[in-house]
Amino acid sequence: MLTADAKGVFPIAPTPFRADGRIDENSADRMIDYYVATGADGCTILGIMGEAPKLDAEEALGFVTRCIRRAPKLPFVVGVSAPGFAAMRSLARASMEIGAAGVMIAPPSSLRADDHIAGYYAQAVEAIGTDIPFVIQDYPLTLSVVMTPGVIRRIITDNPSCVMVKHEDWPGLEKISALRRFELNGAMRHVSILTGNGGLFLDFEMERGADGAMTGYAFPEMLMDVISLSKEGRRDEAHDLFDAHLPLVRYEQQQGVGLAVRKYVMMRRGILNSDAQRKPEAPLSAAAKAEVDFLLARLAQRDPRAAERV
Amino acid sequence: MLTADAKGVFPIAPTPFRADGRIDENSADRMIDYYVATGADGCTILGIMGEAPKLDAEEALGFVTRCIRRAPKLPFVVGVSAPGFAAMRSLARASMEIGAAGVMIAPPSSLRADDHIAGYYAQAVEAIGTDIPFVIQDYPLTLSVVMTPGVIRRIITDNPSCVMVKHEDWPGLEKISALRRFELNGAMRHVSILTGNGGLFLDFEMERGADGAMTGYAFPEMLMDVISLSKEGRRDEAHDLFDAHLPLVRYEQQQGVGLAVRKYVMMRRGILNSDAQRKPEAPLSAAAKAEVDFLLARLAQRDPRAAERV
Amino acid sequence: MLTADAKGVFPIAPTPFRADGRIDENSADRMIDYYVATGADGCTILGIMGEAPKLDAEEALGFVTRCIRRAPKLPFVVGVSAPGFAAMRSLARASMEIGAAGVMIAPPSSLRADDHIAGYYAQAVEAIGTDIPFVIQDYPLTLSVVMTPGVIRRIITDNPSCVMVKHEDWPGLEKISALRRFELNGAMRHVSILTGNGGLFLDFEMERGADGAMTGYAFPEMLMDVISLSKEGRRDEAHDLFDAHLPLVRYEQQQGVGLAVRKYVMMRRGILNSDAQRKPEAPLSAAAKAEVDFLLARLAQRDPRAAERV
Amino acid sequence: MLTADAKGVFPIAPTPFRADGRIDENSADRMIDYYVATGADGCTILGIMGEAPKLDAEEALGFVTRCIRRAPKLPFVVGVSAPGFAAMRSLARASMEIGAAGVMIAPPSSLRADDHIAGYYAQAVEAIGTDIPFVIQDYPLTLSVVMTPGVIRRIITDNPSCVMVKHEDWPGLEKISALRRFELNGAMRHVSILTGNGGLFLDFEMERGADGAMTGYAFPEMLMDVISLSKEGRRDEAHDLFDAHLPLVRYEQQQGVGLAVRKYVMMRRGILNSDAQRKPEAPLSAAAKAEVDFLLARLAQRDPRAAERV
Repeated sequence: MLTADAKGVFPIAPTPFRADGRIDENSADRMIDYYVATGADGCTILGIMGEAPKLDAEEALGFVTRCIRRAPKLPFVVGVSAPGFAAMRSLARASMEIGAAGVMIAPPSSLRADDHIAGYYAQAVEAIGTDIPFVIQDYPLTLSVVMTPGVIRRIITDNPSCVMVKHEDWPGLEKISALRRFELNGAMRHVSILTGNGGLFLDFEMERGADGAMTGYAFPEMLMDVISLSKEGRRDEAHDLFDAHLPLVRYEQQQGVGLAVRKYVMMRRGILNSDAQRKPEAPLSAAAKAEVDFLLARLAQRDPRAAERV
Repeated sequence: MLTADAKGVFPIAPTPFRADGRIDENSADRMIDYYVATGADGCTILGIMGEAPKLDAEEALGFVTRCIRRAPKLPFVVGVSAPGFAAMRSLARASMEIGAAGVMIAPPSSLRADDHIAGYYAQAVEAIGTDIPFVIQDYPLTLSVVMTPGVIRRIITDNPSCVMVKHEDWPGLEKISALRRFELNGAMRHVSILTGNGGLFLDFEMERGADGAMTGYAFPEMLMDVISLSKEGRRDEAHDLFDAHLPLVRYEQQQGVGLAVRKYVMMRRGILNSDAQRKPEAPLSAAAKAEVDFLLARLAQRDPRAAERV
Repeated sequence: MLTADAKGVFPIAPTPFRADGRIDENSADRMIDYYVATGADGCTILGIMGEAPKLDAEEALGFVTRCIRRAPKLPFVVGVSAPGFAAMRSLARASMEIGAAGVMIAPPSSLRADDHIAGYYAQAVEAIGTDIPFVIQDYPLTLSVVMTPGVIRRIITDNPSCVMVKHEDWPGLEKISALRRFELNGAMRHVSILTGNGGLFLDFEMERGADGAMTGYAFPEMLMDVISLSKEGRRDEAHDLFDAHLPLVRYEQQQGVGLAVRKYVMMRRGILNSDAQRKPEAPLSAAAKAEVDFLLARLAQRDPRAAERV
Repeated sequence: MLTADAKGVFPIAPTPFRADGRIDENSADRMIDYYVATGADGCTILGIMGEAPKLDAEEALGFVTRCIRRAPKLPFVVGVSAPGFAAMRSLARASMEIGAAGVMIAPPSSLRADDHIAGYYAQAVEAIGTDIPFVIQDYPLTLSVVMTPGVIRRIITDNPSCVMVKHEDWPGLEKISALRRFELNGAMRHVSILTGNGGLFLDFEMERGADGAMTGYAFPEMLMDVISLSKEGRRDEAHDLFDAHLPLVRYEQQQGVGLAVRKYVMMRRGILNSDAQRKPEAPLSAAAKAEVDFLLARLAQRDPRAAERV
């Protein structure tokens, strides 16, 4: 079960598809094996970058089942955000029965005031049950919902089953500091903070007090190594490694085409058979693919370990 | 099968629930019987006011099945809007197999440019199949997607299976005129235009060229009668009847609480057993219920036929 | 000076223009005279419906000066919302020096969280000075800023110079009740609540505890009479009069074209020389003008006093 | 006068303020001198990052005058976006009389459809006059207006005085390619494309066909050098230099706090006396300043020329 002490890297797993739109189960297996082999501390499936809304209910549950069976010891967080609580509840409870460690809930984009946001999470927890550990997804750029540190504290305080914040505000460094200050002052209990945004600020997020990353950058090894170096206080080494990847991190973090970049790199690395997305998709142009190839070639020179892995 | 010649009133049916959140099948039966008895020309289920996103896939299909079996001769339009095409396709195709007349598709609220809107409908039609007649739902107030007459024409021209526009822009009278002008000038083939917005502008919408109403005002008889009077050229009588209902129409048309008003009136009329909504719900306060009661009492004085029906 | 005890009707005055786009000063004088003769309790200029952003700074101040000089005893509220505090401060202070009673401030549409909204008002008050009575403009439909009763209370409590809420939420009846409950419970000091939305819910807003209306419906006499009847407890008479005007109120309350309707009716009533708007304008089509003419003719039958005034 | 052949770097100049909120004219002079000495090809003032809406009309014109007088040979582009055309016209015409090279116009954030966007630009050009060269500001992340390549082409084709696109879409590489393809196919006349987004994609933007950058990164020398290297085909050198700055570019490109970072670096470089913003401001925390100091120290090691300039 996911707890407030979770740390490290939880890759956001894409959902692999074949060119014809069906789920690619072989790639899914290989991807999960790869995360385990790399040393991931957990894994998040059916997130926004997992094309979750494109799956129907049966497919979603099938994918959850396959992933968890493939790596029963890996803590899986399942994205259960849904337009209605009936679907949210059934996916959440079914996932936990199969062996998930927890669920992640994003607020619907219509929420506009502190009371509405806090009220939504209270209702969601009532719907899925108070026994399921859950993660707040704080991603205003995509979700259009602005949660101040005060609202996040309120959700955490109101709901004992909240164990983690997926921090994906932009800019967000001050938010990490504010939440950690609440904890220091005794104004909020401790929760895990894992950061997103493709890792674009991971270097400083760790220094501000994050516990790790929950994001899908196509080289999770870098995320793990930066986190380790940062925790060991080897600041310049952490930044050196981070900076070597930054040109690609930045390219992959583009809204809308980011998933295509990520899948393309994972295909080039041999993890996925295909970079196909299910429709409506946003594929890479030939020019974009050439740019990613160029960035990969430059990365190989700067981070030889990454080179071996392509 | 729904065609471009559809006319009259297609009530937007709410989904009846019990207090415990389960679908209330007895009320559903009674409601469908009532629509048939009243002379509805069709019926739309699982629309936005049908709390569709709160149902899981199985419940949604169950509700479609029950409604269609109850009134096999009534043309049913099924709202199939969904975050992904897999869910949209399965509900659309299953509904048509059961006997639906067509489906309704709303654009996702992220769409912001003409090309994206037209592209979305093209992909949706590819997903559900070109053999299913569909309705464009044009409802910018709630959906945040602005479709100019030019974009609507483009969707209609690109997709032969488009047979109807559910017109719910606000303000929208000029849009009806613009679409009818396109038809007159030979710039667009004819489609049916049924109007929404709770009927708030039905008096003039008919005069601008609408074919009828697709909305859920709790007295569909008024909608039918206004349409008939308007078509017969009995203009003042049409407006007199409309105006008698306008205080309640206006009250019911409030965003967010409108559904609660509608269900409350339908309960008071004996059509539904309960005005319960599935969570997250927006219930009526005691003060609001008293206001609706007051409006119903005044309506009874002004439209004696409505009085008999309460 | 505007106080928390303000009551009655403060018409939102349009800014009269000539066909060539210049301010029409004769019409402005006649309009202000008309408001005084009708018995208005105050007047709001340079609001959203006053096309304020289309005026440059000099024109705005000139219009304020002319209006106040024309009716020195009438309490004027000046809309001073601006993208920056420099412009807001200079218009606010200059208006007060000329003799305005207070100012109105709308939140910028980017605000998304309670802290940001409260912080904005604190900064605005610091900018204009704590000696100027101000009105909170709560108009989420147009401004996209959602203020819960709790946030409004916070602004009122934090800023002693706040004396009024212009209530224009939709739906908003429960918000009036919530604010009045705060007052009853001693959780908030008393402020004036004047309502907007073109008067579309004035009948019930008065019953919920509003002090009057601040809106620009082209027959302010109706607003005044409904308020008087409502205060005297003559409920059915209040609703009868209101209902007689509702078809036109509803037509005028359409977003985007509402101002054109209002100016057209005020021109037909002889108050304005022209219904011209400054560009970018949203003029009425010939069909729309005919519809308004039709509504005016019907209104004349139902409210003979209104007939005399056309 | 600005033409469609403009190239190179037009820094987006911040407006320097003193701690008390007044414009800091000495810093303004020094900043303009610095841009000239560095070899800037032009300069943009009163842009979004120039805190333009916080200035009143007189201050804005005073700032334009001072900048242009300080460097009469430098082509200045003046941001004239305003809520109304009266203010837009007066600033545009006054700026051109003083000696500006052209103006920049952003669309108001309410625009949602192709016709509305194209219509807005047509009206704006009518308002300012067809003799003033203007720049389309395409910045959906901040402005919420989505312009497809097709709409941009339409604005360019409809308005001969349009000479440049400030390209700031994100992601936007494909948009540059699409516009250049239009030109190649003869479907659109040539215009200058200068890119924004703080330079975050400048490396590839040049390769896609941009003519340069119009952005305010605090080391415009880097922008100039990357552009030169890119034009000379020295691809790896261009990317090496770019990558050395990328950690800071990325940090400065954060929404909301970016301007504070920029002003802080310009203060540290001795260009500005103060990093003060006029209220409402978003100042840097102590932790953020330390992070920028750290990034500057690392940059000095990687780009020794930049080191000399701090």
